[in-house]
Amino acid sequence: MKTDNANNENLAHIRHSFAHLLAAAILELYPDTLNTIGPAIENGFYYDFEFKSPLAETELSKIEKKMREILKTWKEFSHKEVSKDEAKKYFAHNPYKLELINEIEEKGEKITLYTSGNFTDLCRGGHADIKDMHSDAFTLFRIAGAYWRGDEKNKMLTRIYGLAFETKEELEVYKKQREEAEKRDHKKIGKELGLFVFSPLVGPGLPLWTPKGTLIRELLNDYVWELRKQKGYQKVTIPHITKKELYETSGHWAKYADDLFKIKTREDHLFAMKPMNCPHHTQIFDAEPRSYRDMPQRYAETTMVYRDEQSGELSGLSRVLSITQDDAHVFCRENQIEDEAMAIWDIIETFYGTFGFELKVRFSTHDPKQRENYLGSDETWAKAEGALENLMKKKGIEWIDGTGEAAFYGPKIDFITNDSLGRVLQVATIQLDFNQPKNFGLFCTNEKGEKEQVVMIHAAIMGSIERFMSTLIEHYAGIFPTWLCPTQIKVLPIGESEIEYAKKFTALLRESGIRAEIDESSETLGKKIRGAKTEKIPYLAVIGKKEVENDTVTLEARSGSLGALSQKDILEKLQIEIKEKK
Amino acid sequence: MKTDNANNENLAHIRHSFAHLLAAAILELYPDTLNTIGPAIENGFYYDFEFKSPLAETELSKIEKKMREILKTWKEFSHKEVSKDEAKKYFAHNPYKLELINEIEEKGEKITLYTSGNFTDLCRGGHADIKDMHSDAFTLFRIAGAYWRGDEKNKMLTRIYGLAFETKEELEVYKKQREEAEKRDHKKIGKELGLFVFSPLVGPGLPLWTPKGTLIRELLNDYVWELRKQKGYQKVTIPHITKKELYETSGHWAKYADDLFKIKTREDHLFAMKPMNCPHHTQIFDAEPRSYRDMPQRYAETTMVYRDEQSGELSGLSRVLSITQDDAHVFCRENQIEDEAMAIWDIIETFYGTFGFELKVRFSTHDPKQRENYLGSDETWAKAEGALENLMKKKGIEWIDGTGEAAFYGPKIDFITNDSLGRVLQVATIQLDFNQPKNFGLFCTNEKGEKEQVVMIHAAIMGSIERFMSTLIEHYAGIFPTWLCPTQIKVLPIGESEIEYAKKFTALLRESGIRAEIDESSETLGKKIRGAKTEKIPYLAVIGKKEVENDTVTLEARSGSLGALSQKDILEKLQIEIKEKK
Repeated sequence: MKTDNANNENLAHIRHSFAHLLAAAILELYPDTLNTIGPAIENGFYYDFEFKSPLAETELSKIEKKMREILKTWKEFSHKEVSKDEAKKYFAHNPYKLELINEIEEKGEKITLYTSGNFTDLCRGGHADIKDMHSDAFTLFRIAGAYWRGDEKNKMLTRIYGLAFETKEELEVYKKQREEAEKRDHKKIGKELGLFVFSPLVGPGLPLWTPKGTLIRELLNDYVWELRKQKGYQKVTIPHITKKELYETSGHWAKYADDLFKIKTREDHLFAMKPMNCPHHTQIFDAEPRSYRDMPQRYAETTMVYRDEQSGELSGLSRVLSITQDDAHVFCRENQIEDEAMAIWDIIETFYGTFGFELKVRFSTHDPKQRENYLGSDETWAKAEGALENLMKKKGIEWIDGTGEAAFYGPKIDFITNDSLGRVLQVATIQLDFNQPKNFGLFCTNEKGEKEQVVMIHAAIMGSIERFMSTLIEHYAGIFPTWLCPTQIKVLPIGESEIEYAKKFTALLRESGIRAEIDESSETLGKKIRGAKTEKIPYLAVIGKKEVENDTVTLEARSGSLGALSQKDILEKLQIEIKEKK
Repeated sequence: MKTDNANNENLAHIRHSFAHLLAAAILELYPDTLNTIGPAIENGFYYDFEFKSPLAETELSKIEKKMREILKTWKEFSHKEVSKDEAKKYFAHNPYKLELINEIEEKGEKITLYTSGNFTDLCRGGHADIKDMHSDAFTLFRIAGAYWRGDEKNKMLTRIYGLAFETKEELEVYKKQREEAEKRDHKKIGKELGLFVFSPLVGPGLPLWTPKGTLIRELLNDYVWELRKQKGYQKVTIPHITKKELYETSGHWAKYADDLFKIKTREDHLFAMKPMNCPHHTQIFDAEPRSYRDMPQRYAETTMVYRDEQSGELSGLSRVLSITQDDAHVFCRENQIEDEAMAIWDIIETFYGTFGFELKVRFSTHDPKQRENYLGSDETWAKAEGALENLMKKKGIEWIDGTGEAAFYGPKIDFITNDSLGRVLQVATIQLDFNQPKNFGLFCTNEKGEKEQVVMIHAAIMGSIERFMSTLIEHYAGIFPTWLCPTQIKVLPIGESEIEYAKKFTALLRESGIRAEIDESSETLGKKIRGAKTEKIPYLAVIGKKEVENDTVTLEARSGSLGALSQKDILEKLQIEIKEKK
C-alpha cells in the first residue's frame, strides 16, 4: 500500500532534513531535552526525544512555527568527519548519542556531524537543502510513545511525527487522501455497520463475525464457489490441525516453524494448527491410486488457517490470527497446466470485475541470488516459470517483474489492483508447484501405464476473506452494492394506518428472496429515514396514505427519489439488480 | 450403544465363570503358560496369558473343545480365604499373581481363591455356576496382544476373547447382529464409497473428507440450515481458538482443562482450541446493548470443535479429534423459552423423520447427590428444569428419566433413537442454560428500561456431523437415499453409436440439477452395471440402439428395472424424489 514513490531519493532527503529542523526547534524551545534519532519515513519523518516534562499535542503548532522561523536562517548542510573523542565531547550531555557513537566506532565506520544553521547532529548524511519554499510543504501531526531502539526494556521516549512533501499541493493532496482513508477505515465502518466485533476475552486478531458480517462473507464465498463449480471444482473438508510429520514432508516445518501455533497433546505428540491447506489436500489426492482418466482433480475449500503473528502487527481485519482462505488446489498433468490456469484466470477476472477492480499482473519468480530460500532443482524452477510465462504470453498481457516474490515451492502469477483510494493491493494468485507433489510422491498412471508425477496449482480467489472484506469495506466506504447488503430494502410506513399495507409488501419482497425489513416504530418519517441511512440501506420504501390509496410505494434510492412505483416494478427492479450483482 | 443389558448381573457372572473355564483349558493344553487376569466384558469375557510359544488363531477351536470337555466335570464354585503366604506359595511360579497378591495385601483386602473342578484362581468372586446347558452359549473368537495392566512399559501378553450368553439362541442372535454390524461398519463402507480418508501424516482421529463425503455433509448441513432459516436463525462465524480467559469466565476451564488442546503463543500467551462454541457466541451477543425488541437472537454456525482425546479411544468417525458441530445458540428472555424450544423441537422432528428415525425423549437433569459437578444455584436449576418439564408436558409426551445426565451448566432434553441394527443412539439435544448468561453478564433492557438477564438455549441438530455420518452410513448400509447420493444416476451407453444420445441426456439431467455421470468406457454393459452397483448409485440409465430409435431410456432402479421411459418422465421422477428427500 504505497501512496508515494519511495524511490524518490530527493524527497527522502527533504524529509530527513525536516527531522533535523524539528530537532533544532525542540532544542531551542525546550533546551533541556535530549534528542536521539530522526529518520525519513513514508510520507514524512519523525524524531524521538527525551523530554524533561511531558509534551502536549497542543504544542505542535508552536513547534511548527519555530521550525518555519529557523528554516529562514538555514542555507545548506555542511558536514565534517570527527574522531570518537571529539564526538563524545560534543555530545557529552546526551547518553543516547554516546551509545550511538560507541556503536559506530565498533563497526569501524566514520563518525560525521552535519550542521545547518546553528544545529549540529550526529548523522550519516542524506539531506537535501530545504528552503523557504518548503515552508508550507510540511506539518507536524502526531505524538506517540516509542521505546529507545524499539526495545520495551528501554526508556519510553516521545516521538513526534511530521508529514513532508516537495510542494504544498502534494501535502494537501496527501492530507485529503488521508482524511478520506480515515473516513473509510474498515475498523470504523465495520463497527458502525455491526459486521464484526473483537472480544478482550477471546483476544486480539480473532474477529467474531456478526449475522450481518457473516451474510456478506457467505455471499462473497458463494459467488466464488458458483464460478468454480462451473469449472468442475469439488469441495473437500479437512481439520485445522495435523501431526508435525505432514509439514516435515511438505517442507513447511523447516521454513515456517516459528509462525505455527503448536500444540502438545495429552499424549505428548506435537501437533500444529494449519497455516495453509495444501499439505492436507495432497493427502486426499494421495489416498487413492489415480489414473490419467481421473485427472485433473480440483479441490476447493473455504476454511480458516492460523498464523502465530506478533500482537503488535495485528490490525483490524487486515492482519489477523484466524485467516479464512477461499482456497483451491488443482492436481493435474503437465499438459493440463495451461487449461487449468486459464480457467482460474477467468474466475479471477470475472470475480474482481464484478467490483470494478482493474487487475494488473506480476510474474513472481524465484531469486537465483537467494537460491537457498527455495525448494527443488533449477530444472524444476525453469520448467514451472516457463509454463507460467507461456501462459501470460498466450494471454497477451504485459506483466510487472516480481523476481524474488515466488512462494518457496514455486512461481506465481500475482494479481494486483488499486482500490478507490489509489492504494496498491495484491489480491488473487495462481501458483505453480512441482515441489510438493515431489515431496509427497503424488502420481497418476499415464496412458502407457507408467507412474507420472503430477503438478499442483494453488488458486485462492479472495485469498484471505478477512483482508478482502477490509478492502471491500474501504473500497465502498461501507456503501455496499445491493446484492451484498444485509438489508436490501427497508419499508417505512408513515403512520399506523399504513402498517398493514407495509407488512404485506414486506412479506412479498421476502418471498421473492429479497432481504427486506420493516420499521413499525412510532417514530417520525424523518427519524426512520435517518436510521436507515446510518445503516447504509440501498432502498427505502416509503408508504403513506396516498401510496395505500393508489396501491404504490415511493422508492428512495441512494441517488435520490425514484417516485411512486407499483409493487411489481420495485420487485423486478431489485431482483434484476441483485441477479446482476450490482 | 449398548447391545445387551449390562445390568444383568447373572449374565456378567456367567461370563466371568467362562473366563475361569478358559484359563483351566489353557493350563491343561499348555501347562507352562502363566495365567494373569480374566474379567467379564460386554457380550463375553477375556483372559490374558503369557504363553511360552505364540498361539495361533487356528488353535481356538481346540481350546473351545477342551473348555466343553472340562465344563462337564464342573459343578460349582467353592472359595476360601487364604493368608498372603498361603497364596504366595500357591502361585509361587507366577510373578503376575504374586504382584496382584502383594497389591491386595497392601490395600488390606482379603485374599480369596476360587475353585471349580481342578482349577483354582486368585479371584474376588462374582461367578455363576455354568453347566452343560451353557456349553453352546459361548464361543472364542479373537486373539489380541495386550500389555500387562495396559501399560506399554510392561510385557505384551496374549488376550483371548470369548462371547458368552445365557442361551445358544442369544449367542446366535448376537453373532448375526455382529455380522450385520460388520457388513454395515461405516469405516468399511466409507472406504468403499470413498467418502473420507485418514492419513498417517495428519494423524488418527482427523478425517479428511473427499469430494463425495463433503457433498453428503453439505447436503445434510444445508437441510438443517433450511429448517433453521424458517425459524429466524442467522449464521455467525467465530475462530477456532481463544485466550484462556474466555473459558475461565464460562467455567469450562475449571471443568475441562484436560480435554482442551492448548497453545502457547510466541509471545507466551496461553490459548486453547475451542471444544464448544457457546462462550464465543456469547461475545457476539454481548458486543452490543440489546433491547427487548432485539430478542431473541438466534445464532447458528457449523464449525469444527477440538477435543484432546486419548488415541486409544479414537474410532472411525464415531470418536474423532476434529468434530464438526451444526451448533446453534438462542439468546432469549425467560418468557420466550417455550416458543424457542418448541421451534427447535419441530426442526429435530422434521430432520430425523426424514431418515425414518423414531425419537424418544430423555429428560436429563442434575444429580442433587453430586451437586459439586454443576454450576449455579439450586434456584436456577429448579427454574431451568421446571421450564423444560413444562415444555414436555405441553408437548404431551412421555420421557425417560435422565437424572445426572445434565450438562454442567443446565438441564437438557435429549433425543434418543434406535438405528436399523436396534442400537440405541443419542442424537439431538435442547439444553437450557441460565448459568453462562450469568457468568458472562448477558442482559437485555426490558420494557421498563431495566436490565434483565437473558437465557441461552443450546440446540445442535445433528450434533457431531462425523458421528451422524457414521450413524447414517450404518443405518443405510451405504445405500443412501437418492437426494444424498454423490452420483444420482449413471448413464450407460451400450455401444459407441449411443454415446452421442447418452451425452445429451446426461447434459439434460445436469442442467436440471441432477448429479448425473456417464460411463463412456468401452467395457461391456454387464461390467458397467457392476461398477455402478459397487458405487451404490440409485439409478442406471441404459441406452442401446432401441432406446435411441424410440427416444427413450431404460431405467434400472435399486428395486429392479422400471422399463423404457421418456427422458422427461425420468427427469420428473428424479426431481420429485430429490425434492422430497427420498
